[in-house]
Amino acid sequence: MSGGLLDSLFGTAEVTTAFADRARLQGMLDFEGALARAEAALGVIPTRAAVVIVRACDARLYDVDELGHAAAEAGNLAIPLVAALTRETARCDASAARFVHWGATSQDVIDTGMVLQIVRALPSIDADLDRLEARLAQLTEQHAETVMAGRTFLQHAVPITFGLKAAGWLSAALRARRRLAEAGAQARVLQFGGAAGTLASLGSRGLKVAARLARDLDLALPELPWHSQRDRFCDLAAALGILAGGLGKLARDVALMMQPEVAEACEPNGAGKRNSSSMPHKQNPTASVVALAVATRVPGLVATMLSAMPQEHERGIGGWAAEWQTLPEIFRLVAAAARTMAIACEGLEVDTRRQRENLDDARGLVMAEAATLALQSTLERSAAHAIVDAASRRARAENRNLLDVLKEDREVVDHLDAETFARIADPERYLGMARQFAARVLAQRAALVRRR
Amino acid sequence: MSGGLLDSLFGTAEVTTAFADRARLQGMLDFEGALARAEAALGVIPTRAAVVIVRACDARLYDVDELGHAAAEAGNLAIPLVAALTRETARCDASAARFVHWGATSQDVIDTGMVLQIVRALPSIDADLDRLEARLAQLTEQHAETVMAGRTFLQHAVPITFGLKAAGWLSAALRARRRLAEAGAQARVLQFGGAAGTLASLGSRGLKVAARLARDLDLALPELPWHSQRDRFCDLAAALGILAGGLGKLARDVALMMQPEVAEACEPNGAGKRNSSSMPHKQNPTASVVALAVATRVPGLVATMLSAMPQEHERGIGGWAAEWQTLPEIFRLVAAAARTMAIACEGLEVDTRRQRENLDDARGLVMAEAATLALQSTLERSAAHAIVDAASRRARAENRNLLDVLKEDREVVDHLDAETFARIADPERYLGMARQFAARVLAQRAALVRRR
Amino acid sequence: MSGGLLDSLFGTAEVTTAFADRARLQGMLDFEGALARAEAALGVIPTRAAVVIVRACDARLYDVDELGHAAAEAGNLAIPLVAALTRETARCDASAARFVHWGATSQDVIDTGMVLQIVRALPSIDADLDRLEARLAQLTEQHAETVMAGRTFLQHAVPITFGLKAAGWLSAALRARRRLAEAGAQARVLQFGGAAGTLASLGSRGLKVAARLARDLDLALPELPWHSQRDRFCDLAAALGILAGGLGKLARDVALMMQPEVAEACEPNGAGKRNSSSMPHKQNPTASVVALAVATRVPGLVATMLSAMPQEHERGIGGWAAEWQTLPEIFRLVAAAARTMAIACEGLEVDTRRQRENLDDARGLVMAEAATLALQSTLERSAAHAIVDAASRRARAENRNLLDVLKEDREVVDHLDAETFARIADPERYLGMARQFAARVLAQRAALVRRR
Amino acid sequence: MSGGLLDSLFGTAEVTTAFADRARLQGMLDFEGALARAEAALGVIPTRAAVVIVRACDARLYDVDELGHAAAEAGNLAIPLVAALTRETARCDASAARFVHWGATSQDVIDTGMVLQIVRALPSIDADLDRLEARLAQLTEQHAETVMAGRTFLQHAVPITFGLKAAGWLSAALRARRRLAEAGAQARVLQFGGAAGTLASLGSRGLKVAARLARDLDLALPELPWHSQRDRFCDLAAALGILAGGLGKLARDVALMMQPEVAEACEPNGAGKRNSSSMPHKQNPTASVVALAVATRVPGLVATMLSAMPQEHERGIGGWAAEWQTLPEIFRLVAAAARTMAIACEGLEVDTRRQRENLDDARGLVMAEAATLALQSTLERSAAHAIVDAASRRARAENRNLLDVLKEDREVVDHLDAETFARIADPERYLGMARQFAARVLAQRAALVRRR
Repeated sequence: MSGGLLDSLFGTAEVTTAFADRARLQGMLDFEGALARAEAALGVIPTRAAVVIVRACDARLYDVDELGHAAAEAGNLAIPLVAALTRETARCDASAARFVHWGATSQDVIDTGMVLQIVRALPSIDADLDRLEARLAQLTEQHAETVMAGRTFLQHAVPITFGLKAAGWLSAALRARRRLAEAGAQARVLQFGGAAGTLASLGSRGLKVAARLARDLDLALPELPWHSQRDRFCDLAAALGILAGGLGKLARDVALMMQPEVAEACEPNGAGKRNSSSMPHKQNPTASVVALAVATRVPGLVATMLSAMPQEHERGIGGWAAEWQTLPEIFRLVAAAARTMAIACEGLEVDTRRQRENLDDARGLVMAEAATLALQSTLERSAAHAIVDAASRRARAENRNLLDVLKEDREVVDHLDAETFARIADPERYLGMARQFAARVLAQRAALVRRR
Repeated sequence: MSGGLLDSLFGTAEVTTAFADRARLQGMLDFEGALARAEAALGVIPTRAAVVIVRACDARLYDVDELGHAAAEAGNLAIPLVAALTRETARCDASAARFVHWGATSQDVIDTGMVLQIVRALPSIDADLDRLEARLAQLTEQHAETVMAGRTFLQHAVPITFGLKAAGWLSAALRARRRLAEAGAQARVLQFGGAAGTLASLGSRGLKVAARLARDLDLALPELPWHSQRDRFCDLAAALGILAGGLGKLARDVALMMQPEVAEACEPNGAGKRNSSSMPHKQNPTASVVALAVATRVPGLVATMLSAMPQEHERGIGGWAAEWQTLPEIFRLVAAAARTMAIACEGLEVDTRRQRENLDDARGLVMAEAATLALQSTLERSAAHAIVDAASRRARAENRNLLDVLKEDREVVDHLDAETFARIADPERYLGMARQFAARVLAQRAALVRRR
Repeated sequence: MSGGLLDSLFGTAEVTTAFADRARLQGMLDFEGALARAEAALGVIPTRAAVVIVRACDARLYDVDELGHAAAEAGNLAIPLVAALTRETARCDASAARFVHWGATSQDVIDTGMVLQIVRALPSIDADLDRLEARLAQLTEQHAETVMAGRTFLQHAVPITFGLKAAGWLSAALRARRRLAEAGAQARVLQFGGAAGTLASLGSRGLKVAARLARDLDLALPELPWHSQRDRFCDLAAALGILAGGLGKLARDVALMMQPEVAEACEPNGAGKRNSSSMPHKQNPTASVVALAVATRVPGLVATMLSAMPQEHERGIGGWAAEWQTLPEIFRLVAAAARTMAIACEGLEVDTRRQRENLDDARGLVMAEAATLALQSTLERSAAHAIVDAASRRARAENRNLLDVLKEDREVVDHLDAETFARIADPERYLGMARQFAARVLAQRAALVRRR
Repeated sequence: MSGGLLDSLFGTAEVTTAFADRARLQGMLDFEGALARAEAALGVIPTRAAVVIVRACDARLYDVDELGHAAAEAGNLAIPLVAALTRETARCDASAARFVHWGATSQDVIDTGMVLQIVRALPSIDADLDRLEARLAQLTEQHAETVMAGRTFLQHAVPITFGLKAAGWLSAALRARRRLAEAGAQARVLQFGGAAGTLASLGSRGLKVAARLARDLDLALPELPWHSQRDRFCDLAAALGILAGGLGKLARDVALMMQPEVAEACEPNGAGKRNSSSMPHKQNPTASVVALAVATRVPGLVATMLSAMPQEHERGIGGWAAEWQTLPEIFRLVAAAARTMAIACEGLEVDTRRQRENLDDARGLVMAEAATLALQSTLERSAAHAIVDAASRRARAENRNLLDVLKEDREVVDHLDAETFARIADPERYLGMARQFAARVLAQRAALVRRR
């Protein structure tokens, strides 16, 4: 970790808080408190002891630095925290102290604590995705008829609508959100197995305690403890990774459109916003930069989670510990990207005039496919291709419009009448299913919204 | 790629075939053939042309080397393949040639071809997972009462059953299989958007052609083309990556149990199997080595898929091409791991006697928790801990049994009666929920099997 | 691996050949042959046997498919190859067969074989880097005075020269090449340790045989075998990874400059080159796409190499096998990127007029820093910033030149005289050290060239 | 980042401090202070202003939280820090404020600040490597004659010495340390290019200021600014990654030797050390777990650094920002692994008796190669193999010593005399070059030490 200085840049307040030191402790203490309650309810430990323990399960009572140093000694955080909780409990009631952490192991506390942190972090990411989704839906709708250049390999291809572009972003966002919801639901499980996953320390009451504990924490009870089976966390990491990739794609498109030579869309720039320490004129794609940094960083972290999976026997050497900072890091980063892109899209300034101009400035080359197809209705494919290819090269070389060049070609004129020429010169008549595709995504979203 | 020499080691015949050069061509040609059929059915191209085109859509007609060299020139494989298909079509019927690839773009062919390859590859992985799952269920059942040491951090923790260990593997396999099935189903979509995702080249009939084409290929019709939205492939990659991690975990456990000093389980060793070029006695965990190599390789490849996601505008520069070998590589590797571990587990020789001996040889330390808990029923937690800690150290130092050492401690004797001593000396009486947890996994599987 | 279809796209003939199946076998057989020679020379095995063995060490004598299948059984390629070599030797001289592979282990053969393949692959990459370097030096020199927009965050910053841009590429190429040479030299070591790194099978003559063997193969003799210490290969992988990143940076710059709205440079486009299956006009940055795909793929592969490092004891479970296809893949990919970018740069069409136009079209904003600095000579920093900031916003909003706007500001006019205005309006007078920096890189290269 | 709680576990005090928030600010402020000094010395800014600026370049004067929030707005930390420094300077001397950050850009401050942090962090890692190296040299020397089982694929192979094993670790450590020193030296360069790498804001004095600034900060002056050429940082990341892999290998070996069934070596266990929250008897390989977690995490982070390399034009969108937390994270993690393994090795308890016992307990199988070779002196290779293979299987099945089984084989007895039997029964007579290899590494180290 690298400290609070870059916390706001690479995190949101909500998710950074959900994975802050205190929250990590509180997640673990919530497990310990709920465990005491569940065990008291089932007569495993005295109710009185549980009351005292539960009262001590408040992260504010503990010294983060001290626990941190002790964790380095012990190899994990649960050992010193349980010790501190035991001392705190004993301070109130010496006889209660022995019932702290009854029957549990370090991994039960740490994993369930992490699950609780995840449960607390997810809604704020979802809320940002909701904002993003709403805005992308709006852009899709508003720009159903906004014609612009479709670009493949950073070259003009054929005309599209900006609505179609937005629909592509929206469609990916819908899928990413669903995937995250599913992975989040799957990961919402209790970890409780005792020393090696048998709950032997609770004799015959292990499963009952586990069930009650799960209910208390509002988590599902898994078939069995998953100390060294980490797929649920990896699934979540992957869902976040895919979301990061989608946000990165959106960000890259925005940053590219924001180039001064393109200037088709622009991130919002607050009045007081400073983008450069030396150049007052700079308007940087600041939000996109964050999202792209996130999209660059998260894949390696997802790989770490996957690499950590082959954990030895009932608890691994290294694999488990490798997750402790990695999964929170993924959460923080993706939260930052989601928030930042939601804001950027909400304030996105779209220059539809410029979108059209860029298309028109492109010497008609963007209509080359239309011309080729028109010719192909009577000519052989390769012949049509060759004609338009040659004309395109000439248009480029002489800086003229492709259609003007084509009109000079006798063979072309023989095959295409004026009406056809007019048609292939008009990008608005070469949009194919752009509107329909965009409408399909909006319909899909509407259906999803109804179901939510 | 590194050639056929290591194909069998890092792949299965089925999946290697599904992603072989010919299969890549055939996937693409299947798209072209189906496209011609769909367009003919809808009157976009002449039926006669479609017939000729479809006949030419046979990968055996094309020269792999030639196409490979041309692909390097063109930057992708679709361009030379479409050219070759056009020539082949023209050879039969010159007038049909112009209708080849009508309205489609390179990415339509390549992506849909890849989807078709995926559809063909998945069943064989699923079949291997089915074998693995069946065998793990059997091991879970058979070894419900087989006591062995539970190990955390490669140290003895408390007793478990081998059935519980197998149930952990099984449970992860069930989840991995479900995840793969879901991601596979989501990825089973048509790619068809034309030059920039509008299908403009098909005028107003784009969506109809797309729908028919999807039906013909038995793929879903997505809301819109996904040329630069790659989440479905990434989801599949992640599902395979999680499976690889789970298989790696299983493999690591097997390899560790197979150590001569542990010797609790052993991969099957065919009579004619040679494991070493110089040492005739060697019995290596060959299958586990493959699965662990796969679990080491796949995370980086999944990261590649995620890194490739931010693809520019309507088709990216580099990101798309980065997938072409990466996703097949993931498939091949994971297929090898699934097959190899299915076979290894089917033939797994379990030495239950040795499992028990290792437990018993461990100077009773594995019962330390039981002793501590027994003491905690009357003593304070830290006091109980301190007693057993000291006794454990002495047991280690003097190479004696922990319980014998404890029996010499007056304080202990004051708190524990003979019956308790007998109980905490018996691992079989300290198995907690091991049987129940295993049974829960078996029940879960049974329910899944019924539903399949 | 994914087959020959994409070999030419993602590899060069030389490097693909160096890592082809036959070459892998030949590398291993070269080890076996040299081993026989060395052992014969030192009297470990009969000279006559060595002669027969050496004769059998020809990869063309062996069946790749058969060996591949057997490798899957054995878990590595050395076991079946040694068996086949033994049979082949026996065919000529039964008594010689027993001396095949004398004293060696599978890893000796496989690792040394890989080292030999590396040694054979590196020169062709170096040759491509030499071409690239020469061309970049030429561009640096030719365009020492070519003014263009410097761009940060894809926005215009201040003027630079194209020579400076090229010098940046060149400087990175020089460092990458040196790094690769060093890592290559370090990796040029023999692997020879026998079953567990002691060469026990050779009694007291192990070191002598090793020394002679190393000399024969023109490899260095390491202090000790490195069966499970893989840092040298990882260092090489990292050096290639850094090279890939640098080539990716170059490629991204080229692709961005090639956008139609920017159009400042263009990859060469052969007359017969087809870039699209449907759009004849397309000129795609095909080379850059390859290099960017490589830059996307290699990081994950380098991570795999690093992840594989913690190999168990004297030979690992999985880590070693994870390298077998990964390192060759890295080589192939980076070779493709180096070649492709060398060619792209050699044929790069630079449009210096357009470079200047883009600068001039940018409403003078690129001179904002110059204006601010000029104001700062008499005004306070933040005041100067505020003035230019406001003027920049106005210039943007009204689509006017920044300097024209500034001239209307009384405060500005009070502080800046006409000569200053003229100066800050002229990008050529705001190039700072651009020429000097470029010259320094050229001087550095010249010094390196002299030393080669 | 995830907060201080796990800082001690995954970092050392020195390196965590070197990359703490304050140190990040101080690194940047050291750049600003040195810049003011250099510019004053060359008459670019007034000496008086420099004095005031330098005085304000103290990180303790600034509010971390405030800067953090502002950084999120601005997109980087330099912008608010320069603003705050300007305010602080103005507080003392309003006229000096305008000279703050004169001629520099955000990236100059941030990159040079990072370089300074690196320079401060490296020595403490080197010191830990020095400790580790010294102890490994000692182990190599002390255990030159300590016989133990060599293990490949976690199976017994042939005897080795523990000294040879330690020499392997030492050899890798020597190389990793050299590599880190080289990469560290290469990265010790100034970043100073102004807005787009031309230093235009300094007119003709850019290079002079840069040279003086570099000298002041004790950094090398690079040929040209490297705003978007990030290979030096990547090289450093890779060197740290390779070190992490080597430490992970050492850690894995230790953890495996520490298994109760193996028990050949043990990490030191402080008296007060608690390894488990529930099991008093546990002695976990705590240091190894940290090093293995690090070896699992660092590869993905190195991949991130490499993935971030293709940065756009003169400053990238996302790639640069992706480094800000990643490189420090790598440093912290590797520092923790180096420290933790240095301590673990210094206190490593080696059980040489157990090493010998494990060898002897292995039913003589570890001598199988020796037996085979002895037989091969008169028998054909495959015949010898077949005999020992069969005998090994019988030895395993009947739990007898291989040599006893072999003695019953008439054919064997015909070929091997008693003296040979005695020889192949004695592991100490089958150590080959183990001592010599170890001695070579010690000699190499001695030479390196002399040169330091």
